[in-house]
Amino acid sequence: MALIVQKFGGTSVGSVERIAAVAERVSRFRERGDDVVVVVSAMSGETNRLLALGRDVARETEAPPRELDALVATGEQVSSALLAIALNTRGVPARSLLGHQIRLRTDGAHTKARIQTIDDRPLREVIDAGQVAVVAGFQGTDASGNITTLGRGGSDTTAVALAAALGADLCEIYTDVEGVFTTDPRICESARKVDRISYEEMLELASLGAKVLQIRSVEMAMKHGVTVHVRSSFKNTEGTLVTKEDESLEAIVVAGIALDRDVAKVTIRGVTDEPGLAATVFEALAEAQISVDMIIQNVSAGSRTDLTFTVTRGDLEATRPIAEGALGERQRGAIGFDENLVKVSIVGLGMRSHAGVASKMFRILAAERINIEAISTSEIKVSCLISDERGPDAVRALHEGFGLANPGNPG
Amino acid sequence: MALIVQKFGGTSVGSVERIAAVAERVSRFRERGDDVVVVVSAMSGETNRLLALGRDVARETEAPPRELDALVATGEQVSSALLAIALNTRGVPARSLLGHQIRLRTDGAHTKARIQTIDDRPLREVIDAGQVAVVAGFQGTDASGNITTLGRGGSDTTAVALAAALGADLCEIYTDVEGVFTTDPRICESARKVDRISYEEMLELASLGAKVLQIRSVEMAMKHGVTVHVRSSFKNTEGTLVTKEDESLEAIVVAGIALDRDVAKVTIRGVTDEPGLAATVFEALAEAQISVDMIIQNVSAGSRTDLTFTVTRGDLEATRPIAEGALGERQRGAIGFDENLVKVSIVGLGMRSHAGVASKMFRILAAERINIEAISTSEIKVSCLISDERGPDAVRALHEGFGLANPGNPG
Repeated sequence: MALIVQKFGGTSVGSVERIAAVAERVSRFRERGDDVVVVVSAMSGETNRLLALGRDVARETEAPPRELDALVATGEQVSSALLAIALNTRGVPARSLLGHQIRLRTDGAHTKARIQTIDDRPLREVIDAGQVAVVAGFQGTDASGNITTLGRGGSDTTAVALAAALGADLCEIYTDVEGVFTTDPRICESARKVDRISYEEMLELASLGAKVLQIRSVEMAMKHGVTVHVRSSFKNTEGTLVTKEDESLEAIVVAGIALDRDVAKVTIRGVTDEPGLAATVFEALAEAQISVDMIIQNVSAGSRTDLTFTVTRGDLEATRPIAEGALGERQRGAIGFDENLVKVSIVGLGMRSHAGVASKMFRILAAERINIEAISTSEIKVSCLISDERGPDAVRALHEGFGLANPGNPG
Repeated sequence: MALIVQKFGGTSVGSVERIAAVAERVSRFRERGDDVVVVVSAMSGETNRLLALGRDVARETEAPPRELDALVATGEQVSSALLAIALNTRGVPARSLLGHQIRLRTDGAHTKARIQTIDDRPLREVIDAGQVAVVAGFQGTDASGNITTLGRGGSDTTAVALAAALGADLCEIYTDVEGVFTTDPRICESARKVDRISYEEMLELASLGAKVLQIRSVEMAMKHGVTVHVRSSFKNTEGTLVTKEDESLEAIVVAGIALDRDVAKVTIRGVTDEPGLAATVFEALAEAQISVDMIIQNVSAGSRTDLTFTVTRGDLEATRPIAEGALGERQRGAIGFDENLVKVSIVGLGMRSHAGVASKMFRILAAERINIEAISTSEIKVSCLISDERGPDAVRALHEGFGLANPGNPG
């Protein structure tokens, strides 16, 4: 008898038939004697349908984020009520629960809020009453009772946060893929499912655009030591365990290759190398809730400097006036924007203890005549910005070059 | 400068274009300097779409009413967010507010809950901040924080309750008809819009199936003295004022004719005339939240009695086992059910002081050879159950007979 949090994504609850299949799956766990807390996303397509309505109503203006949150939060509310009905129909007592009902408190950053606290008591009451709690993912309320949402994929974060708050034995993320792959199988035929992966590697892969798990959910799992099982909701096969680093993982130098297409590059060229410039720009971006990914600064001719950073393409429009405004009067340098780039990355705990991984990556790309626009590295990751048309070539060459097609190959 | 509560029904917010039209209308009131609180229903068709999803998921079983409420409450949430967006787009600051956010507390009778209290402070804060509050109608929460709904047409009740709680100057109900008519214009060509009608008359008309206002909203308006203006959301004409009785209304004996097609009759024949029988049956029905409309009891042969009552057709299935069960062992009498009846009624404050109104009604129906199955009267109403196929004939004959086609005619 275990306490398991199970999260079902949009495609897993995308129709009446699929909701029925989820109910069957949950009831099998219940028959085994497990306590189950379910987290659901909106039915696939629903969030986009609602956002399109909001856009149509807003015409050319920006819709208030508070209202967009109230609008899209209905998607998860509908799925949670429907799944609760489907479970009760099968003799499994179940209750739908919304963000405000489980007192999932977030900050006030509408459309990309962060979880602050969860009161586990309302959930425990449901569990103790022998019922399945069916929680609407992706949503919470801020200190004033406004509905907030956690951003795309936020239901993963809800699931992990609940698993942490309840001290659950396992957090299962049911999705439309079979687990975490060494790279995107649509790009690289020899991509292979990974059985286990460390939080750190998963974090890097998630941050690099491997869309299996939302990055915050991985951060939260790592922080609270929640073991996450990413698996298919359509097959009964084992997926990928995302867990603490252990010895068996060390043999592999590179665990995965990621390609992030959602990259826009901003370059501020030839500005005077003032200490305050980067701070001014990034403070203004942070205030506007825009996440900056890579940051590269090089001193060029004389005392002038080039500052390059990347944001998501969706944030580029908002970034332009902020970057220009932050420069203010001193706008002596030119600002350039580039959306025709992608980021290819190699990730692996093993590279901490293996020298030469980065240079091997550059050699592989060079052999393919792929030009590198910018490089950024962390302890377990090397990322290169390259032209978007060469992205798939780069992934295939790196997957081959680091021997990822064959399990256990140390690269 | 007034404080006005405006309620817009499902057809009034049924599309992006209509939501835009509502936003235009609200902003004109704001330009005039009025404070406005808006209450919206779900976009037309949405509640039925959601209920159909719930039915599909529940298969042959009864979906838990708690979950149906969580499901359908999303309809009003979507409209309120969309209208708030549309208002902000037009430079009118607005906030959507849900049942739990305005602390609209109801009892726990899911799918037909009754409002217990409203905390006017959250609304006052929004009004005082110069914003339009766009309240999701039809919904509240019970003492445990579960989402409840007020039953079909419940948004009218939300609007009147808010007007009462805020001491608003006026409650406008925007709908797809131009106001209250002397009878259904689809049945009777000479039906005429009424400029003013008393709460009492409106209450009887609403209870008789004239679907312009939900009956509870009229009860609440009467109790708190809220003046209600029922008017078209598509035209700019004046509608009908529902207000306190005044002298000008007295001239009219009969204010309107109503036809209620949603009638099912239950007859318990020839049971021993025990004092407890009716109590047993109606207590059991009340417990199951089934509303009984007409109740007629006649002593027939010997000490035996016939008990007849009516419920809505939707409640008939639930009524059968309850009526049979309540009789229990003593089930000596036969129970009969009849769904092929309608109720035709005449309503008017004037009949209090005019004798012979009921007999005039019976004469008119007799002249049309319409058989009366049962009669029930109140101070300002006479209702007859007749066969459903003669319903329209009865309405036309009574409308003509009581001179309703000509305003001011004392009938």
